[in-house]
Amino acid sequence: MVKVNKNYNNLNQSYLFSTITKKRNEFIKNNPDNKLIRLGIGDVTRPLTKPVVDALVKASLEMGDAKTFKGYGDEQGYGFLQDAIKKYYKDINGVSLENSEIFISDGAKSDIANFTDLFSNENTIIIPDPVYPVYLDSNMMLGRKIVLIEGNKENGFKPLPFEGLTGDIVYLCSPNNPTGAVYSHSELKLWVDFALKNNMIILFDNAYEAFVNDRSLPRSIYEVDGAEKCAVEFNSLSKTAGFTGTRCGYTIVPQNLIFEGNNLNKMWLRRQTTKFNGVSYIVQKGAEAVFSEEGLKSCMENIEYYMENAKLISDTLTKCNVWHTGGINSPYIWLSCGMDSWEFFDKLLNEAQIEGTPGSGFGKCGEGYFRLTAFNTRENTIEATKRLEKFFKNK
Amino acid sequence: MVKVNKNYNNLNQSYLFSTITKKRNEFIKNNPDNKLIRLGIGDVTRPLTKPVVDALVKASLEMGDAKTFKGYGDEQGYGFLQDAIKKYYKDINGVSLENSEIFISDGAKSDIANFTDLFSNENTIIIPDPVYPVYLDSNMMLGRKIVLIEGNKENGFKPLPFEGLTGDIVYLCSPNNPTGAVYSHSELKLWVDFALKNNMIILFDNAYEAFVNDRSLPRSIYEVDGAEKCAVEFNSLSKTAGFTGTRCGYTIVPQNLIFEGNNLNKMWLRRQTTKFNGVSYIVQKGAEAVFSEEGLKSCMENIEYYMENAKLISDTLTKCNVWHTGGINSPYIWLSCGMDSWEFFDKLLNEAQIEGTPGSGFGKCGEGYFRLTAFNTRENTIEATKRLEKFFKNK
Repeated sequence: MVKVNKNYNNLNQSYLFSTITKKRNEFIKNNPDNKLIRLGIGDVTRPLTKPVVDALVKASLEMGDAKTFKGYGDEQGYGFLQDAIKKYYKDINGVSLENSEIFISDGAKSDIANFTDLFSNENTIIIPDPVYPVYLDSNMMLGRKIVLIEGNKENGFKPLPFEGLTGDIVYLCSPNNPTGAVYSHSELKLWVDFALKNNMIILFDNAYEAFVNDRSLPRSIYEVDGAEKCAVEFNSLSKTAGFTGTRCGYTIVPQNLIFEGNNLNKMWLRRQTTKFNGVSYIVQKGAEAVFSEEGLKSCMENIEYYMENAKLISDTLTKCNVWHTGGINSPYIWLSCGMDSWEFFDKLLNEAQIEGTPGSGFGKCGEGYFRLTAFNTRENTIEATKRLEKFFKNK
Repeated sequence: MVKVNKNYNNLNQSYLFSTITKKRNEFIKNNPDNKLIRLGIGDVTRPLTKPVVDALVKASLEMGDAKTFKGYGDEQGYGFLQDAIKKYYKDINGVSLENSEIFISDGAKSDIANFTDLFSNENTIIIPDPVYPVYLDSNMMLGRKIVLIEGNKENGFKPLPFEGLTGDIVYLCSPNNPTGAVYSHSELKLWVDFALKNNMIILFDNAYEAFVNDRSLPRSIYEVDGAEKCAVEFNSLSKTAGFTGTRCGYTIVPQNLIFEGNNLNKMWLRRQTTKFNGVSYIVQKGAEAVFSEEGLKSCMENIEYYMENAKLISDTLTKCNVWHTGGINSPYIWLSCGMDSWEFFDKLLNEAQIEGTPGSGFGKCGEGYFRLTAFNTRENTIEATKRLEKFFKNK
């Protein structure tokens, strides 16, 4: 008799953004003349840039010619893409990687969630609150013991290790989704030292590194000495290069990650070769183009565009005396909404036709907060700031 | 202190096809003037067909234009692709599906391996031997109890349920990889009735359905009454349409699959929305084109090309009095090699410069057998048959 994984019954019925999609669709159905502006799910609006599109087209055509056709690709991803990422790391953050430490994936979400496969269910998982819900959900699915560590106004939504904190696997997300908080070098160093001392591993979600404007802040945990012995880093092209619908990310698993005599790099290779078959050649060629000189320049232009949107939203909230943070080294603005955050979601949707994301969707400590994204068009963002101004004036 | 998943230590050090790749690369290094013909890993050689390439190029260009750009896609995959698959099922095997029962994936391997997430580790897993190694490996990674059921010459490599067979989750692969054996309707009916009677689930790997020439044989387990209450079906475009490097598959999870009060369709949706972010829009458009009238016609031409290769290999083996099966409703030829199958691998590689796959890589019952694929070019296949003739003559 089939026995299902009962841990699923402990999850919220649907993934946060699935719930928002459902609510949005209902709203649209009931308001056929709506002028909804979506600042909810962090989905981008700028098209792929020309160097990337050119590479995608060229690769598509190659697949139609027997002489250039590609079947199964290299196990960890193509060398041309690993080489490009290696150079990017060296240039951006001074970190040296080996190709064997770089795994190409269909996105950071898959790898972050699947990396849990490598660990026993006897581990205790330390997760910041509020944070991207995938860390919590993917570990709840395995029935693991979870310790939440509080992010709040007082610690700038950057929880740090403290005396008495015990656990085995720590998730960190910096720049943080949803709060936009960015750990400094010295703060990350506290985490790295804590992990090394206690034989913990840090699963570091680096999906938003490209949004770090302030060059005194780290753009990789490997900028911190010792991290290569205790941290895995997950990267994404979703926001960096507009790949939310194109799907490509990459995960760094250092060769020095040894736990209980097991090399995690080798374990992850075994996991991926058994349960994954790589990313489309076409998409990998598009991703390679992101890291070309012209590609990086064009992607940075898009990021600057979004960051100007962030400033418009942030300035509006300041004008309306709404407490908020983020939006400087991150595309997310995190505001204090002064009520239940799902109630605020409904209110903002109905009164201003703006979709955002309720803070409580990112954890208990997100209650009373709300996330807006800078990823819409300039036109829609300007219209949204007008509506926000009116909305907050009427409160 | 991090506790790793110790079950990984029970696996072979590397995935079967990773080992073959390593051996091939060594051979090439030591034999720089080699004329290796690869009939090993089941990778295709025919390029993508014109309708598919046209769709990929068009979609790539759409991604470069703000008006047609696509971010995150629909959770289970785009409706246009689900519609195309629904029509294909209806046309090919008369099975009616709902869109909500069709999940688009980056390939059958990922879904087959990840579907295990939905079950408790207390289940006993029934796996045919020999078979595609992913079923065994992905369950060994979870430390589950596994019962192997024997495929052999006597049962035509089609093990059937028998009195006293107990377990909870059954993997079936038809047309079988590696043996090419195809279950008939009445044989599948025995499995479906057995599963329904014992409250088991069948995980049905249908990756090679397009190679079934004999229209009296089933091309979906849902052709059998009751299967919608006990079976999940995994499909792939890898061999059907040459997508091994393009990456797209689809999984059918009926709405009627209820176990312990849990709807597996809902559970899989929760799993996928949490741990996966969908397939590239570009690739989904390419996949849609596979199912167009012109697309199916062009893919069938490629399949016929491969099946002529299969016949050339099979005829040669017959001529050489080598016992073999498969190659009729499947792209794989399964031959009796009369010795340890890794020994035969080395012998064939060194003496004939032909790479195949050792039967023992698919399970203990595969020992003494060897798999050749029909996926190389006509030219290479003809050359391979000449070498095989010489090889077997000298034995």
